[in-house]
Amino acid sequence: MATFMRLPVAKPEDVDIAIVGVPFDIAVTNRPGTRHGPRELRNQSSLMRRYHHVTGRSPYDLVRVGDCGDAPVHPLDLMENLSLIEGFYREITEAGAIPLTGGGDHLITLPILRGLNRGEAVGLIQFDAHSDTYDEFFGQKYNHGTPFRRGIEEELIDPKRFVQIGIRGSIGDPKNFDFAKAAGVRTIFMEEFVARGVDDVMAEALEILGTAPTYVTFDIDGIDPSQAPGTGTPEIGGFTTREAQAMVRKLGGLNIIGADLVEVAPPFDPSGLTAITGVTIMFEELCVMADSLAARKAA
Amino acid sequence: MATFMRLPVAKPEDVDIAIVGVPFDIAVTNRPGTRHGPRELRNQSSLMRRYHHVTGRSPYDLVRVGDCGDAPVHPLDLMENLSLIEGFYREITEAGAIPLTGGGDHLITLPILRGLNRGEAVGLIQFDAHSDTYDEFFGQKYNHGTPFRRGIEEELIDPKRFVQIGIRGSIGDPKNFDFAKAAGVRTIFMEEFVARGVDDVMAEALEILGTAPTYVTFDIDGIDPSQAPGTGTPEIGGFTTREAQAMVRKLGGLNIIGADLVEVAPPFDPSGLTAITGVTIMFEELCVMADSLAARKAA
Amino acid sequence: MATFMRLPVAKPEDVDIAIVGVPFDIAVTNRPGTRHGPRELRNQSSLMRRYHHVTGRSPYDLVRVGDCGDAPVHPLDLMENLSLIEGFYREITEAGAIPLTGGGDHLITLPILRGLNRGEAVGLIQFDAHSDTYDEFFGQKYNHGTPFRRGIEEELIDPKRFVQIGIRGSIGDPKNFDFAKAAGVRTIFMEEFVARGVDDVMAEALEILGTAPTYVTFDIDGIDPSQAPGTGTPEIGGFTTREAQAMVRKLGGLNIIGADLVEVAPPFDPSGLTAITGVTIMFEELCVMADSLAARKAA
Amino acid sequence: MATFMRLPVAKPEDVDIAIVGVPFDIAVTNRPGTRHGPRELRNQSSLMRRYHHVTGRSPYDLVRVGDCGDAPVHPLDLMENLSLIEGFYREITEAGAIPLTGGGDHLITLPILRGLNRGEAVGLIQFDAHSDTYDEFFGQKYNHGTPFRRGIEEELIDPKRFVQIGIRGSIGDPKNFDFAKAAGVRTIFMEEFVARGVDDVMAEALEILGTAPTYVTFDIDGIDPSQAPGTGTPEIGGFTTREAQAMVRKLGGLNIIGADLVEVAPPFDPSGLTAITGVTIMFEELCVMADSLAARKAA
Amino acid sequence: MATFMRLPVAKPEDVDIAIVGVPFDIAVTNRPGTRHGPRELRNQSSLMRRYHHVTGRSPYDLVRVGDCGDAPVHPLDLMENLSLIEGFYREITEAGAIPLTGGGDHLITLPILRGLNRGEAVGLIQFDAHSDTYDEFFGQKYNHGTPFRRGIEEELIDPKRFVQIGIRGSIGDPKNFDFAKAAGVRTIFMEEFVARGVDDVMAEALEILGTAPTYVTFDIDGIDPSQAPGTGTPEIGGFTTREAQAMVRKLGGLNIIGADLVEVAPPFDPSGLTAITGVTIMFEELCVMADSLAARKAA
Amino acid sequence: MATFMRLPVAKPEDVDIAIVGVPFDIAVTNRPGTRHGPRELRNQSSLMRRYHHVTGRSPYDLVRVGDCGDAPVHPLDLMENLSLIEGFYREITEAGAIPLTGGGDHLITLPILRGLNRGEAVGLIQFDAHSDTYDEFFGQKYNHGTPFRRGIEEELIDPKRFVQIGIRGSIGDPKNFDFAKAAGVRTIFMEEFVARGVDDVMAEALEILGTAPTYVTFDIDGIDPSQAPGTGTPEIGGFTTREAQAMVRKLGGLNIIGADLVEVAPPFDPSGLTAITGVTIMFEELCVMADSLAARKAA
Repeated sequence: MATFMRLPVAKPEDVDIAIVGVPFDIAVTNRPGTRHGPRELRNQSSLMRRYHHVTGRSPYDLVRVGDCGDAPVHPLDLMENLSLIEGFYREITEAGAIPLTGGGDHLITLPILRGLNRGEAVGLIQFDAHSDTYDEFFGQKYNHGTPFRRGIEEELIDPKRFVQIGIRGSIGDPKNFDFAKAAGVRTIFMEEFVARGVDDVMAEALEILGTAPTYVTFDIDGIDPSQAPGTGTPEIGGFTTREAQAMVRKLGGLNIIGADLVEVAPPFDPSGLTAITGVTIMFEELCVMADSLAARKAA
Repeated sequence: MATFMRLPVAKPEDVDIAIVGVPFDIAVTNRPGTRHGPRELRNQSSLMRRYHHVTGRSPYDLVRVGDCGDAPVHPLDLMENLSLIEGFYREITEAGAIPLTGGGDHLITLPILRGLNRGEAVGLIQFDAHSDTYDEFFGQKYNHGTPFRRGIEEELIDPKRFVQIGIRGSIGDPKNFDFAKAAGVRTIFMEEFVARGVDDVMAEALEILGTAPTYVTFDIDGIDPSQAPGTGTPEIGGFTTREAQAMVRKLGGLNIIGADLVEVAPPFDPSGLTAITGVTIMFEELCVMADSLAARKAA
Repeated sequence: MATFMRLPVAKPEDVDIAIVGVPFDIAVTNRPGTRHGPRELRNQSSLMRRYHHVTGRSPYDLVRVGDCGDAPVHPLDLMENLSLIEGFYREITEAGAIPLTGGGDHLITLPILRGLNRGEAVGLIQFDAHSDTYDEFFGQKYNHGTPFRRGIEEELIDPKRFVQIGIRGSIGDPKNFDFAKAAGVRTIFMEEFVARGVDDVMAEALEILGTAPTYVTFDIDGIDPSQAPGTGTPEIGGFTTREAQAMVRKLGGLNIIGADLVEVAPPFDPSGLTAITGVTIMFEELCVMADSLAARKAA
Repeated sequence: MATFMRLPVAKPEDVDIAIVGVPFDIAVTNRPGTRHGPRELRNQSSLMRRYHHVTGRSPYDLVRVGDCGDAPVHPLDLMENLSLIEGFYREITEAGAIPLTGGGDHLITLPILRGLNRGEAVGLIQFDAHSDTYDEFFGQKYNHGTPFRRGIEEELIDPKRFVQIGIRGSIGDPKNFDFAKAAGVRTIFMEEFVARGVDDVMAEALEILGTAPTYVTFDIDGIDPSQAPGTGTPEIGGFTTREAQAMVRKLGGLNIIGADLVEVAPPFDPSGLTAITGVTIMFEELCVMADSLAARKAA
Repeated sequence: MATFMRLPVAKPEDVDIAIVGVPFDIAVTNRPGTRHGPRELRNQSSLMRRYHHVTGRSPYDLVRVGDCGDAPVHPLDLMENLSLIEGFYREITEAGAIPLTGGGDHLITLPILRGLNRGEAVGLIQFDAHSDTYDEFFGQKYNHGTPFRRGIEEELIDPKRFVQIGIRGSIGDPKNFDFAKAAGVRTIFMEEFVARGVDDVMAEALEILGTAPTYVTFDIDGIDPSQAPGTGTPEIGGFTTREAQAMVRKLGGLNIIGADLVEVAPPFDPSGLTAITGVTIMFEELCVMADSLAARKAA
Repeated sequence: MATFMRLPVAKPEDVDIAIVGVPFDIAVTNRPGTRHGPRELRNQSSLMRRYHHVTGRSPYDLVRVGDCGDAPVHPLDLMENLSLIEGFYREITEAGAIPLTGGGDHLITLPILRGLNRGEAVGLIQFDAHSDTYDEFFGQKYNHGTPFRRGIEEELIDPKRFVQIGIRGSIGDPKNFDFAKAAGVRTIFMEEFVARGVDDVMAEALEILGTAPTYVTFDIDGIDPSQAPGTGTPEIGGFTTREAQAMVRKLGGLNIIGADLVEVAPPFDPSGLTAITGVTIMFEELCVMADSLAARKAA
């Protein structure tokens, strides 16, 4: 049976890193379908092997990793879901594991951050085409365009340690970025990223994030839709996968408390490429999470 | 620009039959996507011509028909949608038109019936794989499996003049059909339909429906998924399109106050066949609606 | 390399039956793509084996059969194509072979009939969703809706020995069938076919066609679009492939002078099913052509 | 995580019916891909619910059922696989469970029958487009066209209690069916099936099979490719799913010792319909297996 | 109903920029399908919002923009189409609007330039994989490989102010580029573009184009087929969308009299990505057209 | 009928360069399908024209080229295939032609090298995501991950003149590259390639390969899966087609004795883009092979 990375099914208390799914998409405003993301990510992860070819290391040699199943979700009640997901992550946290999540639409990062919260706002690095710091949509405060505004308001995220990379695409309101800017979020638009390149941009990002606890969130739509077509709100002109991999590989020195890969919507990609891309990014995230955790354990 | 049947855009007050869309899918419990149904139905309706080859008649020669656009919908708030849709149909009704709808998931028939209601419960003929008379799902009373239970409870539908044809597929609870049976609904399972054939089944149905006002609802999943793959809850062993067309063609003598074709979910059918099937059924519905209306006007 | 039925490439003078392609689609009025029909029919014909499972006979044991390549076509000049195609078939005829064609849009049957003509109008049996006896379209006399009207006018086809089966679908003008009817063509609409069944309908057709030379034309859109989705003008409610096979199998006693299978448009069917269906029908046609020819040779 | 019918993962000793997968396709002669069959069948089985709508019964109320995982397979060594699969089924048998298998290509039925064998040849009912009783292919004795010839030779199958239904399609050799006929196998070609209908054909089949132990094998290519396109050797003119379901439903009175559904090849059907069809047939098989087993237990 | 950019339907006299479609593909020499381009571009433009994220400006705040529908086309008569299209654009011009067109195959740019012509040859900047300056194809002077040769011959285009970027791919004749070179056209092959980069190449192009009236034509096949697969003549090794966007953004200082985006062929891209790419480029074109027009109005 | 590059069918003795197919995939360990590679490469090669746009030269003006058909293959017996393929290439070699092959899985390069061998180990340049120098898989020594280890062991390949470019992706064993490194193979991982660029990397490669006989092998999975999705073991982060073309174009000065393009698996790419990419790379290979051969002939 398909599990993430062909790992054994495990309970959070028996692992250091819990890979989980959140089959959720009722907070999207455009094309739904991410509720099937975890299933397809698990399917395609059968292609992933144990060692990273650049480092020669395997995360499984450093820490204990398992597939801890899916968060419970309610197919119709958005607010009920926020509670269910938060509870699921609180249990993981209390069991002593850190989560690596395959989504699900981007709103799920909000209840994940709630579940991980131990009283202190965390740093956030976000790879994404969209800022997701809007206030509301159609009068609705909780949707996949608002999680990070809510996260800042709820003091789950420290806006001074929040970096967004890859933002692009037409916008409904020229004031879309005002809140983030005023709060101190560092938004690196795609055009700046292209001009400066991976190394320069990531040096700045790591500087901002520092050594305090940090969460990593990767929206698959940050990547170009030719390499990840199966997503609800595609924006052309995205990261290449080479750039995406190079960026994630630089995160091993951070103090990572969790990571996710969201917005994979299989109905829009019968070829499965989006999930292949998604699960490869998850493997890159897993490798730096393992490095980060091993370093903390060693310290 | 794509309109239903390449008709002119019109206001309800200028037509007898208003063809409209309801781009709505937040009441589904399985695979969403029907919010794109009206768009794809309009696209594929460019294949439809003006005259029915069996009767030699055109609905456009009998009554005034136009594309009156889409009902307003809210992408996230289910209960708000029920109000918006009801209001849209009330306006159509008050303008003196009768609606032919391209959906949208099946919950939309509930607010449509509310909007059409003039104080008296109507008859209903439903072509469908699923009974949609369940009480709730995950504690939720309003979803695409419950519209007709709600409709009976709200006295919008007269259960004694309610016929369902084509019901099939595994069920979650053996008591699923108890409510409908107790209320007096006539449920004709697929197996009975196959054994008896179109003529015999429809003779009984027309007898039950009589001459009082009747609404026609056609869930595309009543048709076999080989002929209509793009839907959220496919069930094998469905109607052939030949059977479906033959059944709808027998409705011209009814007193039809509205009709719909729902659950077309384009993301699950890149070929467009589902929408071709759907819009052809809509054309069949339109022809019998026009006959029904012309007869009433003549009377 | 892909040939029809994996046959050797041959010259018309070396075979009794010449299987050929006509990669042509500039006479369509809706969705082009049949120019790629012959290629995909050849590809999928790798699935066909040598013996018919019902008769236990192989056409290759009865007569010489080969793939004689494609007719020359001009990608832009419709009238030039009519000449090129006519010439190609005249050569086949003069070489003593009879053609089995994979199309191409349905207009190609007109120049085929011209090329085969030896001064005498022939009988025609047409399996099709559309009558293709219209006069013109947008003022254009030569398109895929007009070949049989032109064929009757040019005295290539004897309208008294012309049977059409499977006609259906909405029409642009209620007078569409008047010409055919007045000329004596026997049009069997899908509804009549369904009511009477294969045996009864075909008995009448064979009676009409008699023993004089007859051409067989099969438009893939006669078959239901669920079994042949890759075509330009799909009409739901078509023949099942079981019906189609049963009908063609009854033609062995006719005096067949040629046959075709047209309107396979691969871009609309990435699965290849349409070409599988098409080439299986071509194999059925080939078997009855071989029987017909063997009987004539024996006589 | 996706399991068959959303059942719990189980060990054979804890269930009465063990649903298992065999991700195997190296015995195909045309288009491979069935190694991904079990995964996709599990995915689509999330659509299946617990009760059969015709009987109102659930197999889970009658017997214990679980997903016992996949047989071990070797991706490159065909003969090694036959041993691995046989061993897997021997364990299931020795644990006291009977297997319901999702394949895999049709050769797997041979090692399944070996693993189930208790010294006595069993009856076999086969729904299929192909006889699969050929002797060899390219000099190879073990491939997906030969399992039942090997099974008869090895005295695993009693040819006098062996019924095949739905056989059709062009053949490479007119002697293909001679062995089966001489051995006493009852081969019901599609044409005979169409002429006689489900009830008449199944009455004969049940008579032949009697009350001794019987294995049920269902090749998805028995069903029409419009309803099950994702298979390696599609043949047009197949069973409708309505016919297929009706036939399987008649098997409840047999003494069923195992069943399978094979030849689902997901790469040839991005829509997933083939797996939906396949898993619905598996649910029908499960229901009659449970009935059969419950009756035996009660006796 | 789907309009370009969800704009209101408008008449040319009520807008400054008229977005229009030309559903035309009978001048293609390879794979037709662009007649459905405008429909799919309109569909996917529902993803576009009002403001450009780099400039923070909206074209709708600068000038009046509307969807003015499709040019009339004749489905079969190429030369008749050239007249129809020219007339349509002459009306737009006479109404005082400038057109932004979604095609359609590339021949449409010829009648567009005829319709826009006020007696003076204009500059042209062409993003494309193919030069389209050939003389004829199969003896045919008017097809999608010849518009710019005809345009130069007819003195619609000033060859000294004509820049082509992105040309690549195997060619049928080594003299293909001789005419353009002799006429003074500046052809920048893909290899030169890659070596020099966007900034350098565009500086030269703007220099050549100067401040006289200029038309912008963008063939979607200039972009790499991984990002725009749905086109008739794909050539690997194309522009990335990032490069394409960067180039178009530099055109705001030109004196733009019209622009187009052509060769989107939806049948070859069920995913819709090509149209998403296409309509995003159209939005980029619209933004620079609005800037250009606003500057002229201000001047 | 579809041939490579629309060339005439030819015998090896009548050509200098023999383009051939090897429809083989039974050595894959993951997703089969490359047996259909040659057919689809031939289909898509109808898009290729005669002249290279950068050099202005045509290979057909320099040397004689033809399509020499497919190597014989056995659909089930791996070791038998190795003999069949070796024999086919020995005949080509003995006829005095050099082969350009469209595969097939990567194991085919082993029997090709055996067939070409004249007693002396050759140089090898490999574009690929995977090293394919593993020892065995599941105890099997001959599969698509081992050809170059076998080739070195059999002294078909000179490991000191063996360059691999583009290697990447997670690995099952950190010692995967030890054998190649110890043998003297130069493995350039994707990360090194990205850092150094095409010119620098290829300068080193050409230096290593020198002027002795060299074989060129191109695994389509070296290219990014967005540009070549139809392959069995996709790895994100691959070559762009621009890079791939630029690299192959630099090989004209080598002493090329054969070349291939392998691992095109059409079932995983209904769009055909992979084969378009593949056959364009084959055309680039053909151009440098012709240059290389013409230079040798001239010398």
